[in-house]
Amino acid sequence: MPIEYEFSSITDPSRQGVLRVFESKNIPFKIKRVFSVLNSEVHTTRGQHAHKVCNQLICCVAGRIKLICDDGLRKEEIEMTPMSKGILVPAGIWAEQKCLESNSVIIVFCDQSYDEYDYLHDYDEFLKYKKNLTV
Amino acid sequence: MPIEYEFSSITDPSRQGVLRVFESKNIPFKIKRVFSVLNSEVHTTRGQHAHKVCNQLICCVAGRIKLICDDGLRKEEIEMTPMSKGILVPAGIWAEQKCLESNSVIIVFCDQSYDEYDYLHDYDEFLKYKKNLTV
Repeated sequence: MPIEYEFSSITDPSRQGVLRVFESKNIPFKIKRVFSVLNSEVHTTRGQHAHKVCNQLICCVAGRIKLICDDGLRKEEIEMTPMSKGILVPAGIWAEQKCLESNSVIIVFCDQSYDEYDYLHDYDEFLKYKKNLTV
Repeated sequence: MPIEYEFSSITDPSRQGVLRVFESKNIPFKIKRVFSVLNSEVHTTRGQHAHKVCNQLICCVAGRIKLICDDGLRKEEIEMTPMSKGILVPAGIWAEQKCLESNSVIIVFCDQSYDEYDYLHDYDEFLKYKKNLTV
């Protein structure tokens, strides 16, 4: 299931911002792809898929989101803000991100380039995939 | 001076978010470091330094910022939103980011790890550095 990774969050009171630093040496793989998701509406949910091969490290850099991870047997819910740790979502985990505050932003680091065949978009298909792995 | 790089911005009307994708093959260097800056207050300015060696690719993923680039002789101002291109700020350029909307977020990709000696934090020192390079 998900694994936590610590990244510094530097708040500068005089400048009001939050600086978040991700040194490649602190990321557990070679970065092949990075994407950001800006969820502008509260209560919208994104993600809702699993990957067969791709591992993803998810970080919240603005607002507040709820990350839901599901290995087919159990679910884990993690609230994330710009002060939270990064969460590694390994391949084979169904993940969803619920936007809890408007203008929440996540950054996701991936160890694979985009491959449409790596996605499991249907939850029943995901459960079948997991079952076949353990047979 | 700054160079534009195109990255896709995918707006999904049903989900309300903006997905921004940065494939490593579209980034002009090997990513050594990534940082994000959340500017929570309008009119605050960040950056205000130059790098001697480090090249940085700056992308706005939320809100609206003004990027100011200065090579010691001329200034360029670029407004950036989540729909804008990424901007490569090469080494030897003084850069500032002004927050034009609350909760603006930038992601910055770097081709170097953190090195405190790579920073020019003082504008006069920067001008002297540029002058010495061209002598």
